Amino acid sequence: MDIRPIVEAEAYGKSRVRLVKVVRHPDRHDLKELTVNILLRGDFETCYTEGDNSKVLPTDTMKNTVYVLAQDTCAATPELFAQHLVRHFLDDNPQVSSVEIAITEHLWSRIDRYTFEQRGPELRTTTVNGDRYKTTVVSGIDDLVLLKTTKSSFEGYIKDKYTTLPETSDRILATALRATWKYSDPDVPFDTIWHAIRKSMVEAFAGHESKSVQHTLYAVGERVLDTFPQVGEIEMAMPNKHCLLVDLARFGLENNNEIFVPVDEPHGYIKARLVRG
Amino acid sequence: MDIRPIVEAEAYGKSRVRLVKVVRHPDRHDLKELTVNILLRGDFETCYTEGDNSKVLPTDTMKNTVYVLAQDTCAATPELFAQHLVRHFLDDNPQVSSVEIAITEHLWSRIDRYTFEQRGPELRTTTVNGDRYKTTVVSGIDDLVLLKTTKSSFEGYIKDKYTTLPETSDRILATALRATWKYSDPDVPFDTIWHAIRKSMVEAFAGHESKSVQHTLYAVGERVLDTFPQVGEIEMAMPNKHCLLVDLARFGLENNNEIFVPVDEPHGYIKARLVRG
Amino acid sequence: MDIRPIVEAEAYGKSRVRLVKVVRHPDRHDLKELTVNILLRGDFETCYTEGDNSKVLPTDTMKNTVYVLAQDTCAATPELFAQHLVRHFLDDNPQVSSVEIAITEHLWSRIDRYTFEQRGPELRTTTVNGDRYKTTVVSGIDDLVLLKTTKSSFEGYIKDKYTTLPETSDRILATALRATWKYSDPDVPFDTIWHAIRKSMVEAFAGHESKSVQHTLYAVGERVLDTFPQVGEIEMAMPNKHCLLVDLARFGLENNNEIFVPVDEPHGYIKARLVRG
Amino acid sequence: MDIRPIVEAEAYGKSRVRLVKVVRHPDRHDLKELTVNILLRGDFETCYTEGDNSKVLPTDTMKNTVYVLAQDTCAATPELFAQHLVRHFLDDNPQVSSVEIAITEHLWSRIDRYTFEQRGPELRTTTVNGDRYKTTVVSGIDDLVLLKTTKSSFEGYIKDKYTTLPETSDRILATALRATWKYSDPDVPFDTIWHAIRKSMVEAFAGHESKSVQHTLYAVGERVLDTFPQVGEIEMAMPNKHCLLVDLARFGLENNNEIFVPVDEPHGYIKARLVRG
Repeated sequence: MDIRPIVEAEAYGKSRVRLVKVVRHPDRHDLKELTVNILLRGDFETCYTEGDNSKVLPTDTMKNTVYVLAQDTCAATPELFAQHLVRHFLDDNPQVSSVEIAITEHLWSRIDRYTFEQRGPELRTTTVNGDRYKTTVVSGIDDLVLLKTTKSSFEGYIKDKYTTLPETSDRILATALRATWKYSDPDVPFDTIWHAIRKSMVEAFAGHESKSVQHTLYAVGERVLDTFPQVGEIEMAMPNKHCLLVDLARFGLENNNEIFVPVDEPHGYIKARLVRG
Repeated sequence: MDIRPIVEAEAYGKSRVRLVKVVRHPDRHDLKELTVNILLRGDFETCYTEGDNSKVLPTDTMKNTVYVLAQDTCAATPELFAQHLVRHFLDDNPQVSSVEIAITEHLWSRIDRYTFEQRGPELRTTTVNGDRYKTTVVSGIDDLVLLKTTKSSFEGYIKDKYTTLPETSDRILATALRATWKYSDPDVPFDTIWHAIRKSMVEAFAGHESKSVQHTLYAVGERVLDTFPQVGEIEMAMPNKHCLLVDLARFGLENNNEIFVPVDEPHGYIKARLVRG
Repeated sequence: MDIRPIVEAEAYGKSRVRLVKVVRHPDRHDLKELTVNILLRGDFETCYTEGDNSKVLPTDTMKNTVYVLAQDTCAATPELFAQHLVRHFLDDNPQVSSVEIAITEHLWSRIDRYTFEQRGPELRTTTVNGDRYKTTVVSGIDDLVLLKTTKSSFEGYIKDKYTTLPETSDRILATALRATWKYSDPDVPFDTIWHAIRKSMVEAFAGHESKSVQHTLYAVGERVLDTFPQVGEIEMAMPNKHCLLVDLARFGLENNNEIFVPVDEPHGYIKARLVRG
Repeated sequence: MDIRPIVEAEAYGKSRVRLVKVVRHPDRHDLKELTVNILLRGDFETCYTEGDNSKVLPTDTMKNTVYVLAQDTCAATPELFAQHLVRHFLDDNPQVSSVEIAITEHLWSRIDRYTFEQRGPELRTTTVNGDRYKTTVVSGIDDLVLLKTTKSSFEGYIKDKYTTLPETSDRILATALRATWKYSDPDVPFDTIWHAIRKSMVEAFAGHESKSVQHTLYAVGERVLDTFPQVGEIEMAMPNKHCLLVDLARFGLENNNEIFVPVDEPHGYIKARLVRG
């Protein structure tokens, strides 16, 4: 007799639901641009195995729901909007056991009361996971591209027969920081704290006497945990966006750490999670 | 007294190491283009916390190692090359506890004995994880873009107050299939079986009377598990690349399932893992 | 007195109008995926200078028009569909003096009667320019990525004080060919001839004993002009997608033209137009 | 007898030569990131037709030259660096009749004396064309993404049978401005004036009562020509990055110009060149 495969880790939803919200105050307009990803988990096995759609909320309906709920004042921060969406899908859908809402905010700088300029490449992110018992809020930043022209060395590492990299006491350190941190409480002042965390990460990066990307990653994460008791843990990834010193000696010239080639690939890749000790 | 954060889930390596290998047979040349990602795990805590690089193999050395080992005949398939790299890094580095090698193969079609044409967007993938006790080989395919113009319906789903999608018994079904499957044995004929699995997935997609993307995802995965005893489980993700029927009635015309707008965003997103029952 | 700027070279339209057309034959379905760009030129100066929209056909209407006209049988090839659109916009809009329709076709391979697989990265292109007196049809191909592992040298070039490149009698030659050719007649069998031109370009590339990218570009273009009297001229661009030989001598190993690093940047860039002598 | 094709509009060079330059002042470091594209024109016909490389300066040498000349103090602005490169290639290569250097500057904001944060998506551009008789400098900006939430209408346009767009007296206007302007003099203070032009464009966009994208494009260009006598003409392209008002009436809700869907495709596309009257 034939035994059919078992479905595990099934989930479905709508990705890349884009949204611009304008709040029209008397003296100025506020602007938010979000991309929302929705993922539902629950009792969907027969949809996969039998094509039974009776428990399937269409992803098109999820998209409509995002637009309807976006009008609500609860959408003031990505974190609150995501929690609002989680609760909505859980309340209306008994077949759903948990909901994951991941929101990316595309950032705009104000020029005047009604005009804005897109900032980038940096993105603000949040992922809210919720079931009927608890909710976790993990916020973060993506593609925060930072570079320091000094206070970065890389020495004392293992040399083997395939090593050609020279040690250096002074190199460029460049990265596109991605960080996500878990709030210990789903009710912090999300905008204020996000900007404060961002500021402390940039300062930690700038001030650090770096012996490696790993070393700087730790310094940045430690600063966040030290400064913000509301953050329970922080996960970080820092690609090493190499700037290679150009060999000008071939042309009878010195290169005093002035001319570099930035390369996109290959790149180093460093990651870790820091938790309170 | 100050308690410093603990480092967890730390890993580092080199990403996007690109490589073209030409094998020069007397009557023809063979060509492979690979992108290799290396990730080491192990005893690296003091590098993060103290800037102690004494246990750090530089990512630049990893890159060199990829090029050296690529010459070896063991590099005949991505799966064998990845295993070769795993063993090398484990053998030479006692501080490393496990190695993850993820390889993407960019596919080329032969035109004549020495000339090739790039195929795409489809990619062949493999991820090999190994420590000193065991090795797992997970191979896959990415961005296999398939479309069927009929034999796809979506009906009988939940309607709520935000539902506007009409039911349809005949729609376009389009997806960019991503699948990864775990081999129960690290020593199968990797090229032969990869092509056979790909073929069976395409046939399952084409032949299926689809009631939903979930339904088709299951049919494709079930076919692979039924046909290939070497595959222990398969994980799949199928975005629903919507093709929306254009409303021509506004212009006094009928649209008999002929003219569609393909949209990149938003898109449905369906995933699951299938394991033997 | 203030003299206001003069408006020149003004044009406007709709870009990236995407379209899938399914033709439902009794025994099979045919599939076409197109992206259409529309650009109108004409008497629009007061729109720019005064905000007078009375002669402006909205770009939204252009989009609707694409969908309506796509149903017509004239849309059988991109070249005929583009001509159809040109005529429509000229006929209905006296303020328009000329229309440019640029269409990109995304290519699909048939799997069975109703199922298709996306090919790529290669694209088929056409640009039709028309006014009330004449129409030109320029078709082409984009991102045809070709590579040959031998029959390519680069020697005898200028050496100056900044030259470090060694001469080579045997290198990899890789390119992403872009070509556009002008038909001398707006009424050729566009599908048949496009496929024949593509085939002849691939064969010319494969068969050529290349002394440089310039040399191969000429050989490919010359073949097209020699073979197809319907083509009046051909314009080509061939980036030199470098595959750099890896220096393994540093590790005591020989690299017999086997292991290369493909790099995206920087790349050589070669272009020319070939006209009948 | 066979008449071979004639080569026209031939040009070749190196694209995407990337460069980071650090200037180490006692109290701070300055940082510039550039991508350089080089294109030579001249007497290259026999390279194409015969494979004769005797007049070919390899593109690899061009790349080396960029790195050598980047050290020179003449590289202080993209415009001067480009002029420096033009003169170098003309002086050393009699077979070259003209040189085009196009430079894109990737922008960084200073965080402290040694640390920088990448700005984007906006890019600063310059294209310098020179032969042995004259040089033109065309500078510009690319991907300056601006959005205003009001003071933009679109009314009074042509309606035909395919029109469905409703007129609106208050819409979002968003664009990714691309502008290039020709300096009447190759010796202006390039950094100062670029920043001043950028500022005046942003202010003109913000302050304008827009009746169409065309209308705003003209207002922005007119402002630049009015304010900067050093600018002889300005060329601009403004995609209309549509933000579509979501129809919430379907769900019994009003949408008071608050919730929009930003769409990447299709998009309007408006362009013009403004010259002094």
